[in-house]
Amino acid sequence: MRPSDRSPDQLRPVTLETGVNRYAEGSCLVSFGQTKVLVTASVEEHLPPWLRGKGQGWVTAEYGMLPRATHTRGRREAASGKQSGRTQEIQRLIGRSLRAVVDLKALGERQVTLDCDVIQADGGTRTAAITGAWVALASALDYLREEGVLKTDPLTDQVAAISCGVFKDTPVLDLDYEEDSSAEADSNFVLTGSGSIVEIQATGEKRGFSRAEFDRLFALAHGGCETLFALQRQAIGR
Amino acid sequence: MRPSDRSPDQLRPVTLETGVNRYAEGSCLVSFGQTKVLVTASVEEHLPPWLRGKGQGWVTAEYGMLPRATHTRGRREAASGKQSGRTQEIQRLIGRSLRAVVDLKALGERQVTLDCDVIQADGGTRTAAITGAWVALASALDYLREEGVLKTDPLTDQVAAISCGVFKDTPVLDLDYEEDSSAEADSNFVLTGSGSIVEIQATGEKRGFSRAEFDRLFALAHGGCETLFALQRQAIGR
Amino acid sequence: MRPSDRSPDQLRPVTLETGVNRYAEGSCLVSFGQTKVLVTASVEEHLPPWLRGKGQGWVTAEYGMLPRATHTRGRREAASGKQSGRTQEIQRLIGRSLRAVVDLKALGERQVTLDCDVIQADGGTRTAAITGAWVALASALDYLREEGVLKTDPLTDQVAAISCGVFKDTPVLDLDYEEDSSAEADSNFVLTGSGSIVEIQATGEKRGFSRAEFDRLFALAHGGCETLFALQRQAIGR
Amino acid sequence: MRPSDRSPDQLRPVTLETGVNRYAEGSCLVSFGQTKVLVTASVEEHLPPWLRGKGQGWVTAEYGMLPRATHTRGRREAASGKQSGRTQEIQRLIGRSLRAVVDLKALGERQVTLDCDVIQADGGTRTAAITGAWVALASALDYLREEGVLKTDPLTDQVAAISCGVFKDTPVLDLDYEEDSSAEADSNFVLTGSGSIVEIQATGEKRGFSRAEFDRLFALAHGGCETLFALQRQAIGR
Amino acid sequence: MRPSDRSPDQLRPVTLETGVNRYAEGSCLVSFGQTKVLVTASVEEHLPPWLRGKGQGWVTAEYGMLPRATHTRGRREAASGKQSGRTQEIQRLIGRSLRAVVDLKALGERQVTLDCDVIQADGGTRTAAITGAWVALASALDYLREEGVLKTDPLTDQVAAISCGVFKDTPVLDLDYEEDSSAEADSNFVLTGSGSIVEIQATGEKRGFSRAEFDRLFALAHGGCETLFALQRQAIGR
Amino acid sequence: MRPSDRSPDQLRPVTLETGVNRYAEGSCLVSFGQTKVLVTASVEEHLPPWLRGKGQGWVTAEYGMLPRATHTRGRREAASGKQSGRTQEIQRLIGRSLRAVVDLKALGERQVTLDCDVIQADGGTRTAAITGAWVALASALDYLREEGVLKTDPLTDQVAAISCGVFKDTPVLDLDYEEDSSAEADSNFVLTGSGSIVEIQATGEKRGFSRAEFDRLFALAHGGCETLFALQRQAIGR
Repeated sequence: MRPSDRSPDQLRPVTLETGVNRYAEGSCLVSFGQTKVLVTASVEEHLPPWLRGKGQGWVTAEYGMLPRATHTRGRREAASGKQSGRTQEIQRLIGRSLRAVVDLKALGERQVTLDCDVIQADGGTRTAAITGAWVALASALDYLREEGVLKTDPLTDQVAAISCGVFKDTPVLDLDYEEDSSAEADSNFVLTGSGSIVEIQATGEKRGFSRAEFDRLFALAHGGCETLFALQRQAIGR
Repeated sequence: MRPSDRSPDQLRPVTLETGVNRYAEGSCLVSFGQTKVLVTASVEEHLPPWLRGKGQGWVTAEYGMLPRATHTRGRREAASGKQSGRTQEIQRLIGRSLRAVVDLKALGERQVTLDCDVIQADGGTRTAAITGAWVALASALDYLREEGVLKTDPLTDQVAAISCGVFKDTPVLDLDYEEDSSAEADSNFVLTGSGSIVEIQATGEKRGFSRAEFDRLFALAHGGCETLFALQRQAIGR
Repeated sequence: MRPSDRSPDQLRPVTLETGVNRYAEGSCLVSFGQTKVLVTASVEEHLPPWLRGKGQGWVTAEYGMLPRATHTRGRREAASGKQSGRTQEIQRLIGRSLRAVVDLKALGERQVTLDCDVIQADGGTRTAAITGAWVALASALDYLREEGVLKTDPLTDQVAAISCGVFKDTPVLDLDYEEDSSAEADSNFVLTGSGSIVEIQATGEKRGFSRAEFDRLFALAHGGCETLFALQRQAIGR
Repeated sequence: MRPSDRSPDQLRPVTLETGVNRYAEGSCLVSFGQTKVLVTASVEEHLPPWLRGKGQGWVTAEYGMLPRATHTRGRREAASGKQSGRTQEIQRLIGRSLRAVVDLKALGERQVTLDCDVIQADGGTRTAAITGAWVALASALDYLREEGVLKTDPLTDQVAAISCGVFKDTPVLDLDYEEDSSAEADSNFVLTGSGSIVEIQATGEKRGFSRAEFDRLFALAHGGCETLFALQRQAIGR
Repeated sequence: MRPSDRSPDQLRPVTLETGVNRYAEGSCLVSFGQTKVLVTASVEEHLPPWLRGKGQGWVTAEYGMLPRATHTRGRREAASGKQSGRTQEIQRLIGRSLRAVVDLKALGERQVTLDCDVIQADGGTRTAAITGAWVALASALDYLREEGVLKTDPLTDQVAAISCGVFKDTPVLDLDYEEDSSAEADSNFVLTGSGSIVEIQATGEKRGFSRAEFDRLFALAHGGCETLFALQRQAIGR
Repeated sequence: MRPSDRSPDQLRPVTLETGVNRYAEGSCLVSFGQTKVLVTASVEEHLPPWLRGKGQGWVTAEYGMLPRATHTRGRREAASGKQSGRTQEIQRLIGRSLRAVVDLKALGERQVTLDCDVIQADGGTRTAAITGAWVALASALDYLREEGVLKTDPLTDQVAAISCGVFKDTPVLDLDYEEDSSAEADSNFVLTGSGSIVEIQATGEKRGFSRAEFDRLFALAHGGCETLFALQRQAIGR
């Protein structure tokens, strides 16, 4: 029934490759099927002005898409002179999601920027970015501890994200582009390893959706994130 | 327990005043306690280029905040030269929410722009804007039918929105600013009169939240929207 | 003869309502007939860099128009990414006019920003803004004295403004939009309570105008401002 | 008494040199003492979209200042990414002033752009620009008639402009920078050859000014413009 | 003597991998040692307005660098709101270089955009981009011929580029970052397969350079490009 | 053969007039035939943030073109809100060229900005700008020494620039616009008085060019610059 012949609760093949950038303190190339996002974690020993002197650090994210990451070429945001509303919405979500599992005081007065650049898009770029960003961030924090910069681990939990949707009236896990573009409803769940909810975004696209549908989406997301948490631990060797 | 002495499931006093702008085809000044949003619905007989000739219309929204709508003066977005990510995120949500209850083909090749300007903010401006925007839109569509421009009513349902959150570990309805700024979790629900879900946004602010908390937030929102639907019908005299 | 049946020297009904914003140090909703401008006076205890350490304060103004303040919807300046030349010209005029009646040394090293937002426009928005801004500013300065922040009153005089024009070859006071859009000449006078001139702007729109016409416009403005000064004093209870 | 030893009603040496640009349809290098403005009149056979098909033409102006036109280097507006409020205010004034003496229907469906670039500034750049722009425009229109593009002369009158101000309590004509920066009041008058008023802008800088002072400024401006009209006629050989 | 222990006339390991993007008509991941640039060739069946109806096509390029492509994180150009002068200079060079080997009439009324995104930078990104862009372009044109869109091959020649510089007073081929940042002179040569020169850019960085040094740089570039031409032919299977 | 009847190695008449701006520390109006560029050198006793406290100064350049410097009016960059890629490329070249002959440590912690504004363009504006900028800079540095601000001369050499091209298959010196717009190849050489090369930019416009052609262009440039060096020395009275 699904264009990819997956069962409703089946993820696409997911890979999380670390050490893909020679300069970044942490990095991860995350693939969910044909969706590929390159995440780098950059540590800088200074903070934005509004955070200085408060005895804590900051984690923030930026998101971008290469112009030909998609079926038809999109306009380069650097050329059009501004980031779209969609881009800003996504990077705000990524930043919030990662901060939910970091003890900013333990991080100290430094900033980690998670650059999430979509090399190729086939649905689910924001959830892939969050899932990969945790790996890049964990790698960077491991590096800082190895270097003796950090004494303790500021990471308090794992965080991963997955999209679900109602496609041809059936709730399914991990929408690809073909499903996403004709789904009746679309949702993104950001969950922690310890089982709490960081963020839920659910939108009726073609029609409103029911409470029963929502509950099923939630259950699918819960199962999908369990798999992602295992892959994340494996990627960073824990 | 709540700073306003409200019970957990109690809305602030809500008013929806129509006819507040002499030029707009529809308008509504919506108040949720001290939060006041002026919404105008402007009908234009032309469409953005990408929608022309498709036999349908469009409903879109813009959102703004007067500089001193808040405790301390914020920078005027027109002066800073761009709309913030928050502004864009909110106006995209308002547009999506209203389009969910409009038959765009029945609207014909015209556009309705819902301008939501926050005169005073005390929490919940986006949900107040959606709730008031439905009233302004319904008024404008009534006007178009009275003028004979529209033969049928493109409105397919009511839509309203409300925020809920976990404040001091208790789920509560309709957060004011004081609650919002220290809530553990924050959510916005956009629901239709016929009971389906248009959009859910739920975010853990200070900590992740549990499934049980989420279910309670959902129940509060459901109850709150029932009250809002009745007030909307009353405001437009149906 | 005038579309509104007013006599040539007759103002529209003018109201100046104070205390209309719960956060601002001073505020005024000013109406000249159907023209409505919301003015807030915001006091901030810091100055722009070029003024710091000079032992004086600053008064500045910003002006904006809600998109549907006018007959047809105008583009939102925050969305178009810049303020128009007209907007900048008006806000510079408002700032200059108010500074003319403030002793900036007596104000101390703080800044008052007068935000003038046009809720509905029917001609004369800039002169209404100036007239209302004086009331908002006076309220804010009264508040600062009550709070003990200021020992003396930095206000040295009243200031008010009114438009006049040549409409169908007759000089008339306080143009509404219908008159303004077909007037042969258009002028704005900013005068002080003690009788001196702060600013005159007079423009031939359809034709040049004569010295005799100008003198008559001046006399009308003088009379109109006398009424406005009385209303201002009444509004702030002096 | 004046820093330049001029009498109160004495202009600086004024020159109007035509034919200073080999490409422009008309051009004029205007000097008022050390103030030097290069004006070019460019004729284009197309109109801005909002004017097309209305059977008339348009005259518009742009104004700029070379970065080192002033005592200390100013920031290049092209580098800062926007034109200042002052620049926009001035170019709007120049455009309005020239349109006041052009029959736009007789001009036909074409646009004349008057570029006024300040090579060196010593006060009075906007009035010098208007005075020189008339010469450049007249030259361009003469050229169009010689070429047979225009059958009749769209110019209906002369227009010139001059600044006056109250300097050390004395009304004086044609302020230079030293006077301008310490004047109590400052004004610009735009007058036509036939004696009517196109625009008056008068501002109290250090204090308000009186009606008697204003009348004296007006008289000075009237005399100064008479001289400018004669120089303009001489410059274009009429 | 070289930090990388290469001989003066030795290239870094160069790879040209095609088919790296599933959507683009042509693509190439080019590596010069640690410098990695992803190039996609996007074919669009419309032209910029100024080229329409002239019976020819267009080839253009855009260039970008991921924020952490470099040792320290650079600011994202989409976030800063404009492309730097350096970026614009490079993308203009890439476009010119590729157009030099395309018969634009044979291309027909379509545009090919070459997006060159630097994944990792270690010197020589612009020359790597040109070299890889030729491969991506050739692949896209091959694809258009296979699809029957093009009857003839618009490619008239190969083009490749390489940097050379004077490092510690010795002319060397293919500078890496460490050499580039301390070189006395730096140059880029763009040459065609048939031996003609498309572009030379040579700059004295720490000192001017002599004619003899320039001649040696030229000879090195000539040799390096011979190798690149062979690798290009191999990459596209010719 | 050349449109201007010049021999292949003949410069246009070149003039370098100093002292053309009453405020700038140094200035030069440079003409190459009908190409006219006004250069001012502005000395400021502060540096950009990234250069402070390093015990050295900075020399930078900005470039602009008046809208009607060209055959048809170009858009004003200040109005379009950004500098074109061409403008940025040129001003970066001018800055690099002049820094090549300045001892930045001897300059001390101050900045010289060379504003190069094209009054009229007929080909070769960037090379005229460099040639004139050296004169303006030398004048400013002479002034600083006369004032006692500088003890030694930071100028280490002369620098001049000239364009050459292949026009109708013949290498020629100093292209005017008519030649430039149809040349097969175009190049700019920036050379020092002592015979070293600062910058070479050579581009095939209609076709690639050969090594023999390049060598001839180089020889022409060498001869042309000798003349320019003599004119520069004469202009500053050395």
